[in-house]
Amino acid sequence: MQREVTVNERRYRWMDRPLVVVCVDGCQYEYITRAVSAGVAPFLGRLLGGAGTAFTADCVIPSFTNPNNLSIVTGAPPSVHGICGNYFFDRERGEEVLMNDPRYLRAGTIPAAFADAGAKVAVITAKDKLRRLLGHKMKGICFSSEKADEVTLTENGIERVLDLVGLPVPSVYSAALSEFVFAAGVKLMERDRPDLMYLSTTDYVQHKAAPGTPAANDFYAMMDKYLARLDALGATIVLTADHGMNAKHGADGKPNVIYLQDTLDAWLGAGHARVILPITDPYVVHHGALGSFAMIYWPAPFDDAAQRARIAALPGIELVLTRASAAKRFELPPDRIGDVIVVSEQDTVIGTAAARHDLSALDVPLRSHGGLSEEKVPLLVNRAVAAPPREHRWRNFDAFDLGLNLAN
Amino acid sequence: MQREVTVNERRYRWMDRPLVVVCVDGCQYEYITRAVSAGVAPFLGRLLGGAGTAFTADCVIPSFTNPNNLSIVTGAPPSVHGICGNYFFDRERGEEVLMNDPRYLRAGTIPAAFADAGAKVAVITAKDKLRRLLGHKMKGICFSSEKADEVTLTENGIERVLDLVGLPVPSVYSAALSEFVFAAGVKLMERDRPDLMYLSTTDYVQHKAAPGTPAANDFYAMMDKYLARLDALGATIVLTADHGMNAKHGADGKPNVIYLQDTLDAWLGAGHARVILPITDPYVVHHGALGSFAMIYWPAPFDDAAQRARIAALPGIELVLTRASAAKRFELPPDRIGDVIVVSEQDTVIGTAAARHDLSALDVPLRSHGGLSEEKVPLLVNRAVAAPPREHRWRNFDAFDLGLNLAN
Repeated sequence: MQREVTVNERRYRWMDRPLVVVCVDGCQYEYITRAVSAGVAPFLGRLLGGAGTAFTADCVIPSFTNPNNLSIVTGAPPSVHGICGNYFFDRERGEEVLMNDPRYLRAGTIPAAFADAGAKVAVITAKDKLRRLLGHKMKGICFSSEKADEVTLTENGIERVLDLVGLPVPSVYSAALSEFVFAAGVKLMERDRPDLMYLSTTDYVQHKAAPGTPAANDFYAMMDKYLARLDALGATIVLTADHGMNAKHGADGKPNVIYLQDTLDAWLGAGHARVILPITDPYVVHHGALGSFAMIYWPAPFDDAAQRARIAALPGIELVLTRASAAKRFELPPDRIGDVIVVSEQDTVIGTAAARHDLSALDVPLRSHGGLSEEKVPLLVNRAVAAPPREHRWRNFDAFDLGLNLAN
Repeated sequence: MQREVTVNERRYRWMDRPLVVVCVDGCQYEYITRAVSAGVAPFLGRLLGGAGTAFTADCVIPSFTNPNNLSIVTGAPPSVHGICGNYFFDRERGEEVLMNDPRYLRAGTIPAAFADAGAKVAVITAKDKLRRLLGHKMKGICFSSEKADEVTLTENGIERVLDLVGLPVPSVYSAALSEFVFAAGVKLMERDRPDLMYLSTTDYVQHKAAPGTPAANDFYAMMDKYLARLDALGATIVLTADHGMNAKHGADGKPNVIYLQDTLDAWLGAGHARVILPITDPYVVHHGALGSFAMIYWPAPFDDAAQRARIAALPGIELVLTRASAAKRFELPPDRIGDVIVVSEQDTVIGTAAARHDLSALDVPLRSHGGLSEEKVPLLVNRAVAAPPREHRWRNFDAFDLGLNLAN
């Protein structure tokens, strides 16, 4: 009898070799193809060239880090797991609520379920904020590069990570923060051979460097080396992304920003509507909290079609949806999104009030994400794949399904 | 001094080896990656794997055949060349106008300009309707597979094509119609070595078969063989697509259709508004004239925001734009588009009146195009590429620029 684990109504076969799912933060497909074309990523080149299987998948909208990482590890959309951004607005309490805490999570994860069933599991993230969500109720190893020097057996299921990896704790704003994830993953695979591993990087590099640039190619060359090693160790590797990444500036290098709170204040009076940017988090230096997705809360929940039409007519706006439409189309939890959902076009971001965004730390032209233009992401596996029975809209949160059920 | 040709305000370097630009009709990227992963397209696999350069490009919206083929050969959007679909509505004359005739073309083509400057040029299309547009005012060889038995030196610049190719005239609804294009291209390259060749296929296979299915993989395996031969003959090959292709049906196999004329008739009275589907052409068997793009003409040009909002709220509608917004965003000629532009979501098409679409000829579940969901297309070249100086939104109509100015 085939051993299986069921999580969020999807069944996963027990692995017959280690599975490593890699989420490359902000990995617009072109980062990979440009690095391959430049000759610096030969392992990824072999995957694209027929030695593996390459799909284009849709990520979760909003195309942000937390909703997508949680979707990948739960195999489910935010309507199931509850994490649809970093912030929502609790209208009854009149406050903006940070959703970084695991108590907002409404579903169990695939790694936790496999660990409960006896698998050896490891989750490694770049930033610690994500580690706490991803490792919720999971037995096994779970730590972040950011706090690799603070790990304890009780909290992280592992000790002395720095000794294992042989690298110092990287800066939270660095390519090294992601390299540490891979270096640790390879060392763990060599030492403990976990049955299931989830590696999640940060998009520091992608926010700064366009596909094909030296900094981007260096990053993918680094990744390529570690991925090749994991492949040589016999693991099934599924690589996907939480979201893509695009330039959000004009030819002059200045960001194209729609300050939506300012606009609504001018139209309706100060503070009548409240704009929430769910990209906002404690680490905003590299994107100034500017992404292509915003939510609007009216003073009370109602549908103002005239205001929606007016917003939709603003240059640079791609899509304006009611709460109900957005919840349905993007599979979002209705209680944690605004009355109106606003998505901007590929080269444009949405801000609140100009005065509330500090762009002085943006030392290169803005690159960001959040919208539909960052929806397409790679979904690569280093194996042949049994084709699904019918045409399939691949999602990045099919990664475990692909690795456990379909890869040969 | 470097020899150059300027067309529609873009400069193109003279080729130092033959350039073949291939437009694969309906080539959603996944057709290529699935065929490569299946091991049946080794040449394309080498291109993706680092031996060439692979970009994702945006096609022209509406994602239809003629606007995009004309954009590729003119290097310009429809606002310049004028062909934004197969039909527009001439309100003054009260009639729907078919734009298949070259007199609607407002710009010269790159092949024609190179031919005028002394280059040996050949254009081969699958269907004859496109041949007349693409070959307009061009000295050189220009013929279609469809009418390969009717070529004359005066009209087509070549004689006895069937003898050259050694294949019979294929059915207009067949994979062979496209194979003939490649077979003829290879024979011409072997015999005449044209300086510049444009090969344009038809999407018969893509309308019927999803990526990775046997029929699709067979088609790409066929193409792969001819492309490898053109590569071996020393040509620079740039491969792109006119548009992608997606399933437009539900799990039951029935098409998801919004009959927009019926809807508007019910709302506003019969015939008040006129819906034009610019995908309509004399060959509709394989898609029933159903695509993800429609235009609405009101009795007189005006902007009815309330009706636009009502249409935008229909389930399955992705985008509703005024003429001015659509002309700006998609670079379309304002005089040849409707008062309102409507785009449907990935799995949905727009029809006029149910009674006017004969779906009886659809022998497989509907696949079609026309919308934003078919905007991303491959742009591949069998050479290294000098990176453009700054981040670049690649378009399929950069194909000649890529092949002549940037490929090494």
